[in-house]
Amino acid sequence: MEKILASLITIGDELLIGQTIDTNSAWMAQQLNDAGIWVQRRVAVGDEKAAIVRALEEEGADSHIVLITGGLGPTADDITKPVLCEFFGGKLVLDEAALENVKTIFARHNVPMPERNREQAMVPDVATVLQNGRGTAPGMWFEKNGKIYVSMPGVPHEMKGMMERDVIPALRQRFATPALLHRTLITSGQGESFVADRLKDFETNLPPHIKLAYLPSYGLLKLRLTTVAPDRAVAEAEINEAFEAMKTVLADIRVADRDEPMGVIVGELLKTKGLTLATAESCTGGKIAGMITAVPGSSAYFKGSVVSYANETKTQVLGVQAATLEQYGAVSEETVREMAAGALKVLNTDCVVAVSGIMGPDGGSPEKPVGTVWIAAGGRNGIRSMRYQFRYDRARNTEMTCVAALNELRKWLEA
Amino acid sequence: MEKILASLITIGDELLIGQTIDTNSAWMAQQLNDAGIWVQRRVAVGDEKAAIVRALEEEGADSHIVLITGGLGPTADDITKPVLCEFFGGKLVLDEAALENVKTIFARHNVPMPERNREQAMVPDVATVLQNGRGTAPGMWFEKNGKIYVSMPGVPHEMKGMMERDVIPALRQRFATPALLHRTLITSGQGESFVADRLKDFETNLPPHIKLAYLPSYGLLKLRLTTVAPDRAVAEAEINEAFEAMKTVLADIRVADRDEPMGVIVGELLKTKGLTLATAESCTGGKIAGMITAVPGSSAYFKGSVVSYANETKTQVLGVQAATLEQYGAVSEETVREMAAGALKVLNTDCVVAVSGIMGPDGGSPEKPVGTVWIAAGGRNGIRSMRYQFRYDRARNTEMTCVAALNELRKWLEA
Repeated sequence: MEKILASLITIGDELLIGQTIDTNSAWMAQQLNDAGIWVQRRVAVGDEKAAIVRALEEEGADSHIVLITGGLGPTADDITKPVLCEFFGGKLVLDEAALENVKTIFARHNVPMPERNREQAMVPDVATVLQNGRGTAPGMWFEKNGKIYVSMPGVPHEMKGMMERDVIPALRQRFATPALLHRTLITSGQGESFVADRLKDFETNLPPHIKLAYLPSYGLLKLRLTTVAPDRAVAEAEINEAFEAMKTVLADIRVADRDEPMGVIVGELLKTKGLTLATAESCTGGKIAGMITAVPGSSAYFKGSVVSYANETKTQVLGVQAATLEQYGAVSEETVREMAAGALKVLNTDCVVAVSGIMGPDGGSPEKPVGTVWIAAGGRNGIRSMRYQFRYDRARNTEMTCVAALNELRKWLEA
Repeated sequence: MEKILASLITIGDELLIGQTIDTNSAWMAQQLNDAGIWVQRRVAVGDEKAAIVRALEEEGADSHIVLITGGLGPTADDITKPVLCEFFGGKLVLDEAALENVKTIFARHNVPMPERNREQAMVPDVATVLQNGRGTAPGMWFEKNGKIYVSMPGVPHEMKGMMERDVIPALRQRFATPALLHRTLITSGQGESFVADRLKDFETNLPPHIKLAYLPSYGLLKLRLTTVAPDRAVAEAEINEAFEAMKTVLADIRVADRDEPMGVIVGELLKTKGLTLATAESCTGGKIAGMITAVPGSSAYFKGSVVSYANETKTQVLGVQAATLEQYGAVSEETVREMAAGALKVLNTDCVVAVSGIMGPDGGSPEKPVGTVWIAAGGRNGIRSMRYQFRYDRARNTEMTCVAALNELRKWLEA
């Protein structure tokens, strides 16, 4: 069975000057992987004809499938459509369904349709049109020399709608793909090199078509097994066996058996145990609550948070003693324990996680340098507290504090 | 003056299966732009020799500078270093300074150094070593046929340290670059096509070397001007003149004169006016507070937030009337106004922004479909409230609600 290869091309100057982070490619790669299609290259080019044509030629020569996003807007800087039209030797014609879609969108917003949006309904006559359920720019499916090229809008939710409804189902139908499977074990508490040493025998005994990769991620370490095999049932049995063997070796540092955000992992534990949660956050400024509520259905177990950024908020809303703040400071074991106890009481929940720390760049001292964090996690029958020391910039310190706090809560829930 | 061109190569299977979102490239592109260097292509390839070599050859042929990240870890899946060593015709030798650095890092964590980390201090003898101030893998600077290739770790904060300390200063010294300048105007309230119509004359009169691009972003529209010119003073004068002209045309929909996150824009207004802020968040689950506290120094004006995810939290912590919730529901003008008034009082601040909405996928009804959001913004002398209707998935609805809430707060602050 042939391995089906794909390339992703993203078009737009904003990607080359760093104004936009490309989140589309990761999502598209996941979808293609699930369909058994291997992404071998991703290329980003600017809104420039020669660069787009070169990418189309090169990626089309190497891959069976080329997925293209971006450059389909109604303004003059967007040139993807005319370039594709010329590349595939077509001419632009009006697509009635696409025009109807554009008109409907403007009608829904109660504004008249500008003339330039009519041009968005013009499509190359050599393309199969993919209607855009979420925006004005239609997608286009081209075939040339046995290769498939699909052009989609760069706006993430528009691209996602088109991929899910049209592109992935059509690709699944077209290709008999091998099973391409991944399984990821999340661990914490040991560095990449130590874990690699512990997995030496395991790696030696892995079948050659199963690959192991190490991905450090905000204080966690993700271990990803990947296999490709013609038969899905065989592939599943093999990767599951290898995964269980790896899990046994690393049982003491295991966090989760799937690559899910910590908000999902903690949320499932809370739901299973029927417990409610509150957070009390100082330095993370609400981001722990944000991770928990990013999960649909989190209202079943999450009651809320007090973001006590100012000391006054710590005392007046959470009931932290002014004397505690004065004697030990806001970033201290004593304060974070009182914050946790206060949130349990004020928000009336079964368990709690609280954090207080110094994220930088300012606010550090010799005793409490930037990156000092106190975390408290627990419930009515007891609260655990622990100190962490991070060494990064503000954004990374904050992200690592959130992950560490949710991991401490997980440990308490699983204890 | 020659335009200096760069390519970015990111290496790692995690980028091709969608396990990791590439945030490095955007940051690197910004830094290169600031140094007057134009990024013309970004390529991502897997941990595979042939793919890496091909990318090195192609990008080296086209660009003056090739920056490479990823694949330098201590484990077997990381092959970038041996591939580079062979590509540049060198052999691996021990770098004493790199070994010292690795030893120091393990000593700091009080753990013995595994043997495999010693190998991280082996470097090609044809490379100039860039010491890693934040991790164990050294960077490598190669030159071949007049082109520069720099290999750096994929861990963002390690790469950033190396770029700032070594790579960017060395590139600035090497090349006499033209001034490459961007200016971005953020607007809200009008779609891309309408704005383009309003800017028709402006665009026609723009000098040909100044480009205008339209970037829709979570309900805002960013308008970016770009210019390249040999003389920085001339370039600055020209782009500033064009920017002011554009700003005049769009005065009624202007949000900000710089491409900064809304947390920064609102934070500067609060600081200038000497006002303190609280948030009361239901559906956004703390993410508005998270955006505000992402800004260093935000403790000068941000006192905290009550994330009232459960109705019980709305009544007990914010003092929302149970009758209000019963009569109008949690997602209503009445509730969000009481949430705002409650937060003003409980957190004792000058101003407030509050939100309550339905982010999906569940919880919608015919009268209040998924995406319905009420926002309240104001202060002690009055609170404004407004309804928004988003039409996306949970993550995007949440993000758009945060941006809309901060924009409503900005309007109130600027009124």
